[in-house]
Amino acid sequence: MCELLGMSASVPTDICFSFAGLMRRGGATGPHRDGWGMAFYEGAGYRAFHDPGASADSEIARFMQSYSIKSTNVICHIRKANRGRVCLENTHPFSRELWGKVWTFAHNGQLKGIKKRPLNFYQVVGTTDSEYAFCWLLDQIRQRFPKGQKNPKTLQSFIRELISDLSSLGVFNILMSDSAVLYAHCSTSLHWLTRRAPFGEAKLLDADIEVNFADHTTPDDVVTVVATEPLTSNENWQKMASKELRVFKLGQSVGMS
Amino acid sequence: MCELLGMSASVPTDICFSFAGLMRRGGATGPHRDGWGMAFYEGAGYRAFHDPGASADSEIARFMQSYSIKSTNVICHIRKANRGRVCLENTHPFSRELWGKVWTFAHNGQLKGIKKRPLNFYQVVGTTDSEYAFCWLLDQIRQRFPKGQKNPKTLQSFIRELISDLSSLGVFNILMSDSAVLYAHCSTSLHWLTRRAPFGEAKLLDADIEVNFADHTTPDDVVTVVATEPLTSNENWQKMASKELRVFKLGQSVGMS
Repeated sequence: MCELLGMSASVPTDICFSFAGLMRRGGATGPHRDGWGMAFYEGAGYRAFHDPGASADSEIARFMQSYSIKSTNVICHIRKANRGRVCLENTHPFSRELWGKVWTFAHNGQLKGIKKRPLNFYQVVGTTDSEYAFCWLLDQIRQRFPKGQKNPKTLQSFIRELISDLSSLGVFNILMSDSAVLYAHCSTSLHWLTRRAPFGEAKLLDADIEVNFADHTTPDDVVTVVATEPLTSNENWQKMASKELRVFKLGQSVGMS
Repeated sequence: MCELLGMSASVPTDICFSFAGLMRRGGATGPHRDGWGMAFYEGAGYRAFHDPGASADSEIARFMQSYSIKSTNVICHIRKANRGRVCLENTHPFSRELWGKVWTFAHNGQLKGIKKRPLNFYQVVGTTDSEYAFCWLLDQIRQRFPKGQKNPKTLQSFIRELISDLSSLGVFNILMSDSAVLYAHCSTSLHWLTRRAPFGEAKLLDADIEVNFADHTTPDDVVTVVATEPLTSNENWQKMASKELRVFKLGQSVGMS
């Protein structure tokens, strides 16, 4: 098992508070000691931080908790290895360019037999099931829509089909983004909540940290956070159903199937 | 103009000392205020740090000077924008996956007419000449060797042809790596030196910092550093000739044309 954390926001927003909670689960309050990573979009731009060590002990993770990168789309992952050794190339999130956009992907689960499927355009760098599934997924999207697909419903519907197919191989809790939207698929565990005005206080479950979002937001801000397990004790997290796929854009849930 | 810094080493080595000098040129001792980035290979694994702000003021850059990531291949870049606005997606180094390896690329110069050349597999995310040239280069390599090329001489000879072609469009000082080797091509300015036993002291030109490499190395270590302008005042930097291409592997110069 690993843990996932994603954010979709209407305006560039920092994820320091949620990240502080998640990082504690990487070796302190949780067993996910085998690497962590976080990916940020800033417009079309993309940057990621990866560390193959435990996040609870990581100097980069400590730095990231104090350094505010504001983004409209974020994907984080802390790893408890099951397939693939602990090393940088097996550290999520993974990324590839498709149609001039950076796509990024993080996965919690295992997929039996995924490596029997042929890969074409995208090849794996590491040895995880997860990166293999991501490459396969992008291969299918690229083959179906070589020049891109401007209709979001058509694209999302095809991605829904691919995710259903992959889910038949095992546990496939994922977060994925193409820089514009955040896809969240639940097999076994994924929760989300949307924060909007009037903003209130939140208290982390894994660290003695509270924040009053009213001090850090404007009334129009809308921010959705998605996580394997709820990160705060006093907010109303919604548990996703098995096989539920949600699409978030600028903080709002814009599609569900 | 931008500035480049690369390292090729026989054993994982940190680049903190050289990076400390380069970062000063990003807004303090030099005018390269428009973003910086550094890419590290750890085996097949790859991680990069990008910041669209000035490196001399960057909190991430300050952190990276104290945080020792040991790598056998590093590429750094500080940017003085000429083509393409200042933003994350225009911040070097750029990276793409080819043959299951992450390739990375940083460029100093301008290429006239590069954007008239068609791109096929790899598309640009940002708007720089540099990323366009990198995508074009990888496109050609992929088309010529769809399944990879195990003979390094054959591959390097083809890359030499491509670089010569691109050089005809303007200034093309570059550093590029496929995780195994570091390519360095000079149009107008690139210098290199190899440090090996007996190791001595070095003093930065841009900051009041000295290091005695004998304290940080073993007798078998071999480390080559490549930079737009020499970074130290008391070492014997070799100036590369115009149109010279060098290939470094594990700290040694293994090819030159």
